[in-house]
Amino acid sequence: MIVSLLTDYGAEDEFAGVCRGVIKRIAPAAEIIDITHGIERHAVRQGALALAHSLPYLPAGVHVAVVDPQVGTERRAVAVGTGDGRVLVGPDNGLLSLAWGALGGAVEASDVSRSPHRLEPVSATFHGRDLFAPVAAHIAAGASMSDAGEPLDPDELVCIELPEPAVEPGRVSAHVLGLDRYGNATLGVSHAQLAGSGLTFGATLVLGWGRDRSARATFTSTFADVAEGGLLVYEDAYRRLAIAVNRGNAGRELDLREDDEIVLRPS
Amino acid sequence: MIVSLLTDYGAEDEFAGVCRGVIKRIAPAAEIIDITHGIERHAVRQGALALAHSLPYLPAGVHVAVVDPQVGTERRAVAVGTGDGRVLVGPDNGLLSLAWGALGGAVEASDVSRSPHRLEPVSATFHGRDLFAPVAAHIAAGASMSDAGEPLDPDELVCIELPEPAVEPGRVSAHVLGLDRYGNATLGVSHAQLAGSGLTFGATLVLGWGRDRSARATFTSTFADVAEGGLLVYEDAYRRLAIAVNRGNAGRELDLREDDEIVLRPS
Amino acid sequence: MIVSLLTDYGAEDEFAGVCRGVIKRIAPAAEIIDITHGIERHAVRQGALALAHSLPYLPAGVHVAVVDPQVGTERRAVAVGTGDGRVLVGPDNGLLSLAWGALGGAVEASDVSRSPHRLEPVSATFHGRDLFAPVAAHIAAGASMSDAGEPLDPDELVCIELPEPAVEPGRVSAHVLGLDRYGNATLGVSHAQLAGSGLTFGATLVLGWGRDRSARATFTSTFADVAEGGLLVYEDAYRRLAIAVNRGNAGRELDLREDDEIVLRPS
Repeated sequence: MIVSLLTDYGAEDEFAGVCRGVIKRIAPAAEIIDITHGIERHAVRQGALALAHSLPYLPAGVHVAVVDPQVGTERRAVAVGTGDGRVLVGPDNGLLSLAWGALGGAVEASDVSRSPHRLEPVSATFHGRDLFAPVAAHIAAGASMSDAGEPLDPDELVCIELPEPAVEPGRVSAHVLGLDRYGNATLGVSHAQLAGSGLTFGATLVLGWGRDRSARATFTSTFADVAEGGLLVYEDAYRRLAIAVNRGNAGRELDLREDDEIVLRPS
Repeated sequence: MIVSLLTDYGAEDEFAGVCRGVIKRIAPAAEIIDITHGIERHAVRQGALALAHSLPYLPAGVHVAVVDPQVGTERRAVAVGTGDGRVLVGPDNGLLSLAWGALGGAVEASDVSRSPHRLEPVSATFHGRDLFAPVAAHIAAGASMSDAGEPLDPDELVCIELPEPAVEPGRVSAHVLGLDRYGNATLGVSHAQLAGSGLTFGATLVLGWGRDRSARATFTSTFADVAEGGLLVYEDAYRRLAIAVNRGNAGRELDLREDDEIVLRPS
Repeated sequence: MIVSLLTDYGAEDEFAGVCRGVIKRIAPAAEIIDITHGIERHAVRQGALALAHSLPYLPAGVHVAVVDPQVGTERRAVAVGTGDGRVLVGPDNGLLSLAWGALGGAVEASDVSRSPHRLEPVSATFHGRDLFAPVAAHIAAGASMSDAGEPLDPDELVCIELPEPAVEPGRVSAHVLGLDRYGNATLGVSHAQLAGSGLTFGATLVLGWGRDRSARATFTSTFADVAEGGLLVYEDAYRRLAIAVNRGNAGRELDLREDDEIVLRPS
């Protein structure tokens, strides 16, 4: 059985390694896939997007995610069964919600905050080790969702809403959902949503952002279609529009931040 | 058989990957658990603490650790059998010593500096690849401690001593053992050692450090008990006291460094 | 079957994790070894060196490498069979070429740019997920090189040439091939190539670089042979000469960059 891990624990400390150890002690036959431990600290939406982007490409299994600014408070810990037969385990803060949306929906849920599988004494700050990893490992080893905690109506789970784009003839407005390691800025609009906007592949676009900033960009499919240092809008690997600088860092060069609004118009 | 790895090799280079490869060539059935490769370069005590914190949560196995500023000198390389049936492999510089303290003690040791399992020619700078990984892999594959090197009296092994706290009524003095990725500063005093000090959960404390710096902090169990930006003292996941700023970076904001002395008093 | 991964995807995002997932979906029995995902972005030569340094220490398998500045263009994607029975998979930009040189040569090749194993629709920017990982996984699961793509003459593969040293009596000139995490600068000259130069172990050398910079260094085998902060030239773990500062960062302190020419003379 696959157990995957996605956290904001980083690579410097032993936190991710300890979670791997806890899983292998409880479920020696489990195979662990690290999705990433590099989510920015406490960046729940960034973690939720990364999880939703990844899981469709992973084998079905038990999928732990921990980005948990409210650890130690009364926020719920949950296990969520998806329509395609996976189990997601993590804090009930929306982190899991974009993923189950991509996996057939949340069809079953348990509140595992006081799970019999937890490691006692549960620390106030490291629920990855004491709660999420052991609950996931027991489920991977065959425990049922109902063994793991109290039944919970999936409708009560916390969800994240992504900002919606506004699409009209000659104008699309969307928000920066996040920036990757390369400074590429993902926008909250997919290629399929552009119908009627007049934005077409190959065209030159005018981007507007900030108080009064603007720049021209080529709407194209790949970085190498523009000169080095050139600005482009492309469809990213998850079918959303994104802004990049060929061999550069669009986030830094355009001073973009998460949630910034970007207006795109045909030139 | 589990083989775990903890090093200061970092993620940029191929060093950790090469060690994984060496282990899998010698012991194809071994399962590798990476604890972390992000220990700060040459930070033996930080590595020793991370290893001691992690191993109790890992399945028993062969546990390699490499933080080795004296690589290439006459410092010994060792394999150490612990009271709970594990084998630790690494340089004899104290790196392993806090871990065996947590695992039933060092009951057996071998000097593996000239182990027959080493990869010839042994480089002067990469003993992880040429010495520690192959020794560990052969032990994981069934070789005995005595096959791996020369018998060594465990009393001769190098140990690290952590600074002791001074606890008196109305005053606790302790040292910063280390800072994690989030800037949380772990102190060399456990909650159990506070008896008689007058420091109690829920109280406001006055922290003193540096030449004449001081600040008030809440002694509480979780970050969310103080406002964003608020200073707290809490019991960390390994039962030691630690200083944090909720959603901030205490190390940076208070300018704390490893080994700094901190005085805690009730307000 | 082992599948190894070496990329410039970094640890922040989910890219490496997604590739692991794709491999395990297609080849559930595959065992994944991460060599590194920390190659500098688009640094093809650095990736090629790291791959060539690592693979001789890994079990034979299918070895994926992705450092791919031309992703989305007409650059070829290839699978290359080596003389020692491995298969390398990646872009045809020289990234694989130093490795096959160390592994018995390229004895067979396929152009997998339009491989039937690819995941449709292939994105323009994430061929690790859509092309390289699935091709490698199918080969690991038993598919032949000819199933994976179109036959290709190995002589048509793109190769990287490393700068050659110039060795004469009393003078060796070599280039910086790269700098590791510690600031150690690897030179494009091996110890075996020094014959006739008069450079011998234990001697003091004069290094010259830049417009008119120079410094004295000890030619020795290990860092601890010089005082803390001292400059040394040593034979690195891959038998090349390298420049280091004991407990310091030579790259930063000497302001060295990749491709800088260094002249070494006996003092």
